[in-house]
Parts: sequence; structure tokens; C-alpha cells
Amino acid sequence: MAAAAPPPPPTAAPITLPEPTPSGHTLFTRIRLATIDDVPHIHKLIHQMAVFERLTHLFEATTASLAATLFPPNAPPPFTSFTIFLLELSSSPFPPSQNPHFTPVLKSLHLDLPIDDPEKEDFRSNANDAINDVTVGGFVLFFPNYSSFLAKPGFYIEDIFVRECYRKKGLGKRLLSAVAAQAAKMGYGRVEWVVLDWNVNAIKFYEQMGAQILPEWRICRLTGEALQAHAHVSL
Amino acid sequence: MAAAAPPPPPTAAPITLPEPTPSGHTLFTRIRLATIDDVPHIHKLIHQMAVFERLTHLFEATTASLAATLFPPNAPPPFTSFTIFLLELSSSPFPPSQNPHFTPVLKSLHLDLPIDDPEKEDFRSNANDAINDVTVGGFVLFFPNYSSFLAKPGFYIEDIFVRECYRKKGLGKRLLSAVAAQAAKMGYGRVEWVVLDWNVNAIKFYEQMGAQILPEWRICRLTGEALQAHAHVSL
Repeated sequence: MAAAAPPPPPTAAPITLPEPTPSGHTLFTRIRLATIDDVPHIHKLIHQMAVFERLTHLFEATTASLAATLFPPNAPPPFTSFTIFLLELSSSPFPPSQNPHFTPVLKSLHLDLPIDDPEKEDFRSNANDAINDVTVGGFVLFFPNYSSFLAKPGFYIEDIFVRECYRKKGLGKRLLSAVAAQAAKMGYGRVEWVVLDWNVNAIKFYEQMGAQILPEWRICRLTGEALQAHAHVSL
Repeated sequence: MAAAAPPPPPTAAPITLPEPTPSGHTLFTRIRLATIDDVPHIHKLIHQMAVFERLTHLFEATTASLAATLFPPNAPPPFTSFTIFLLELSSSPFPPSQNPHFTPVLKSLHLDLPIDDPEKEDFRSNANDAINDVTVGGFVLFFPNYSSFLAKPGFYIEDIFVRECYRKKGLGKRLLSAVAAQAAKMGYGRVEWVVLDWNVNAIKFYEQMGAQILPEWRICRLTGEALQAHAHVSL
């Protein structure tokens, strides 16, 4: 058995450390105000949310009805009525952009492995960007509410949704935090939303974000024929 | 022991029934859009509601903060943002009145006994009416919300309140029904509000109005320092 070759003598040459493990993948994220051009993507996202919540029997939205109600002609300014922040992702840094109502929030996301997005083509962003691989990954829909005890507006979040392949990476938190930051910036008193009581993961997530879960309140809803029954009674 | 006198013979003369009990009192009711002139009354009503709900520790509203947030300069039209219907009562019929946004709902209320209102002077209406004994009895504060599944706006009722001496006479129902009728008129999909789960009388009342109580949803609230903590994180 041959002896192992002796180790090379130490040298004064700088030790070449391995490069820091390449992060594998950096994704850049942007949160911006949605426009009417984003309605096709918003429609698909809302439908995915209905599937996730097993509520497709309640899903009636069309691209036309969403456009007409979310982006009507002479729409009021963002934040004074129904407002959507869109979450986008790109492998290239987003160029800085300006919006008179909201400066997009740009961040990045370091991943060990790249994300395989099976719907990348379907969700190619319609934003007019210099970079062309921008993908829509989620959204948050919110609007003003009001606390009469505080005599202050707040925001109510109707929907918050991140597509499946982008979940568990803190992106839902970025969307919710963007709404909270906007509320704080406007001097608003509260941000509120609802959660299903069996969705313990969501409840835990929201509590970690600093939210209180109010155990005693129940939602009352008047809809359909029961709503129409009031039409001729009072007016 | 003397025998009882025999009953009088039957006669063909018509039996004189007593007059129907006079109703004793008719109150006339009006539901109209509130204006900035109503803020002092609205402030007192909200405070009474806080007392009723045992939540005075959360009550921070002032007449100034209510006026600034509910009736700001260049306020958007009623129903597109925070909107208040005021309930008024009078012993005289209300004159017909016009409002470009909402024609007041005029009805009457027949009572066996007059209502003793210990706060009648405090709640004398500030409306500019030809009749002068108009009293503010309650209010409902509501604003648009949005269902993305329906792609339709709705109304969310933040507060509905009737002063104690006017309760249990169907007046809360008239306020709620006025909001429902307005929603139906505008083609809206839903009217929603919340109720405390221990308030069984209110729950029964709402169910009689045709409302569903949704048992599974819980409200999440981000407020105070937990809200402010997001201010510097995202933007």
C-alpha cells in the first residue's frame, strides 16, 4: 500500500475560501397600485382564491364586472375607495418608478432554490416596464372603513392572496404590511380583515403581524332575495 | 239570599261596542341624510352607544374629529363614502322635502301611550323644518364595501343605534331597512354588519330581518403601536 503523499507545505499565499454559497436565486419584488390593465390577472387571482376557499359556488365575477366596479370612469383617487396592490416578481431588479398616489415598494427575496412557476406565462405582468419577465404573484384588495369611536377612517382588507408557488416566503406579509404602512402614513386608526376560525395557520400568521383576533363579533349578512325584500318596503 | 236579577231579554238593537281605543299618540318618523349640522347630535348618539356597549374606554371621538372625517371639505357624494341616515321623530307630520341624493323616508308610528323623552331638549333637531318639535332618535352609519366574488359593491353598517326611550318600536328595523333598500336600489350585492355573539336579542332581530349570521369568521384588527410598527418597515 503506497503511502499517502505528504500534504503540501503551508504557504503564505492567501487561502482561497469557497465563494459564499450562491443564493441560487434572487427574486425582486414590487408592490404597486393595480390599474385597469391588470384586471385579467386580478380576475384569475380572485378565482384561484375562490378555489382555495372552496367557495367557487359564490364566484360570479367577470373581467367586465371587475373593471366596471373597481375601475369605473371618473374613479375616485386610490385609497378613498376600492384599491388593489399587486405583488409582482422578476429575476431582474425593478426600475424605480413614480406614481402620484403611491411609490411602489421594491424589495428582494433570496432563495436557496429557484421557484418553478407553472403559470408564469398566464401571469406575465401587463405593466409597461423596461424589464420583460415580470410576473404577477398576488394581490391585496382593500378600501376605507370607519371607526365612530375613534372618529377616524381605517382600511378594511377584503382579500389577500399569493399564488401557491410563491407562498411561505413572507410575501403575504409584505402585502399586508404595505396596507398597514399606508394606513399609518394617512393617520388612519385601524386595519381590519376577517379570517375563518378553523384557519389556524392564518390566525397564527396574523397574530405574529401584531393583529388581535376579536372572538365575540359575528358577521351578519343580508343578501339575495332577503335584501331585495327591503327594496319596496322603505323607499 | 236574594235571587240574582234575571238577565235582560235579548234585543234586536245593535250592540254599541266601545270606540276603538284611541291610539293615544301618533309619532311621525323621518329618515334623512345627515349633514354637518347634525354632528353635535351624532356625537352624543355615538357616546350613548359606547355606554350601551360598555366600550367607553375606546371612545375618543369629538365633534371636531367627527366633522372633519365624516363631512370633510369636498366630501364625495353620499353613499360613495361614509354616510349617515338620521332618524327623527315629531308629533306633527313632516313636510315633504327633497334631497338630490336621497328622498327622506316618512312614516308614522301608532302608540298606546306617548313616549316620555327625558332628553328631548338635548336632541332637538338642527334640520331647518317648518315644524319645530323634531327630535333626533337614532342613526345608522354605513359606507361601501366590496365583494370580489360578486364583483359588486355592498354596504357595511358600522353603527345602528336608537335612543333608549324609542326602542322596541321597530325603529331600528326602519333604519336598517332604509340602508337595505338603498343597496337594492343601487344594484348592490350585500349589506353586512357585525353583532356581539352574546347579544341574543340583536341576533334574533337581525335574523327576523332576513340576515344570515356567519358563524366561522373572526375579525382581525391591527391598531395602535402594532399598526405603527409597520410604518417604517415597508414604505
